[in-house]
Amino acid sequence: MNKSTGFNNQNKILIITGGCICEEFLKSLVLNEQYTIIIVADKGLLAAYNLGLEVDFILGDFDSVPANLLSEYKNSASKILRFPSKKDKTDTEIALELALEQKPGIIDLIGATGSRMDHTMANIHLLMPALEQRVNAKILDPNNKIYLKNQSFTIKKDEQYGDYISLLPFSSKIEELTLRGFKYPLDGITLRAGSSLAISNEIMDEVAYVEFKEGILVVFETRD
Amino acid sequence: MNKSTGFNNQNKILIITGGCICEEFLKSLVLNEQYTIIIVADKGLLAAYNLGLEVDFILGDFDSVPANLLSEYKNSASKILRFPSKKDKTDTEIALELALEQKPGIIDLIGATGSRMDHTMANIHLLMPALEQRVNAKILDPNNKIYLKNQSFTIKKDEQYGDYISLLPFSSKIEELTLRGFKYPLDGITLRAGSSLAISNEIMDEVAYVEFKEGILVVFETRD
Repeated sequence: MNKSTGFNNQNKILIITGGCICEEFLKSLVLNEQYTIIIVADKGLLAAYNLGLEVDFILGDFDSVPANLLSEYKNSASKILRFPSKKDKTDTEIALELALEQKPGIIDLIGATGSRMDHTMANIHLLMPALEQRVNAKILDPNNKIYLKNQSFTIKKDEQYGDYISLLPFSSKIEELTLRGFKYPLDGITLRAGSSLAISNEIMDEVAYVEFKEGILVVFETRD
Repeated sequence: MNKSTGFNNQNKILIITGGCICEEFLKSLVLNEQYTIIIVADKGLLAAYNLGLEVDFILGDFDSVPANLLSEYKNSASKILRFPSKKDKTDTEIALELALEQKPGIIDLIGATGSRMDHTMANIHLLMPALEQRVNAKILDPNNKIYLKNQSFTIKKDEQYGDYISLLPFSSKIEELTLRGFKYPLDGITLRAGSSLAISNEIMDEVAYVEFKEGILVVFETRD
């Protein structure tokens, strides 16, 4: 039950959803990040249960969750929200909407990647509403940290996740993209959908600058 | 050495690249699909070698390939194309350009998915030039068949790959999207980046229709 219960101005929310979850990774994340709210969607409950996590919201249709697992949480402080399986939104989308209602500073999403690429890519799309509300939302797994950006930003070398930085256009193009502090710099180019030009870059300076005038980028900080 | 050497009007090209490769899957694909040309990029060579595949082109910087492996292919009919590692394009991008020069009808790309999501998503972007040249190019792994579409199309139920069809906008929006023959039909909606509305659909009729007026879709046929 390693969860800080203190509420602060910058609510840090963890969403555990139903993809592939490395429990060791989840454990270290919960220990280090001190989330104020934990939301569990669908099969993510299994990982939460295995680690003895105290959670705030549990949601899903629970078709694929053992019944005794849910009853274990019934007498806890967790709010259980049941949704029908025939709905327009995925459990992850509902979880993200619920997270945004809590006015968070940070949303970390785990269990959002896995063998089904449609789920992984849909989950990247689901980061859009958070971006529009200027919430720092990201997908995490042992190899990847994935987020969207609609304006220039920096990455500190000693805070990066893994060794590589990759940028892909999420909108159809990125206007006037400039990279400074990277092994492969760029100077005011247009990055279009279909180009892998900005893949597997490396940070050389203490701070790397990603500057652009228009568009939405998907940013990947990755390790092999 | 299970490769048809016959050349036909509809060149079928297989590209084996450096991501995660299930060799059993690759083996059955090569047996069933009778490719006319096989292109191997970088670490994909290891899988090709393990299966005793006769290949037409081998390309990469070969930094991560054992030297004896490459020399095994030196006396075969394979053309070996060495590129420096410091280049603007990924090996997969070079392989796809080479494939398109062969005027193919079909390009299947395997080893294009794996634990690094930047590579997977960049490889989806690399399908764009093939789409523009009206070449049927797709990414395959045991769970996923992924391709891009810029006009209406159909999927036959008895030819689908797995149980689920997912559609995501690759362009910022899809105009007037209509789905017929699906469990969850749609009628002339606008599908925008950020929506997971068209995820995990199922085909109910013999033929499913995906109709839209404008935009580019990423299509996933997937199995759990």
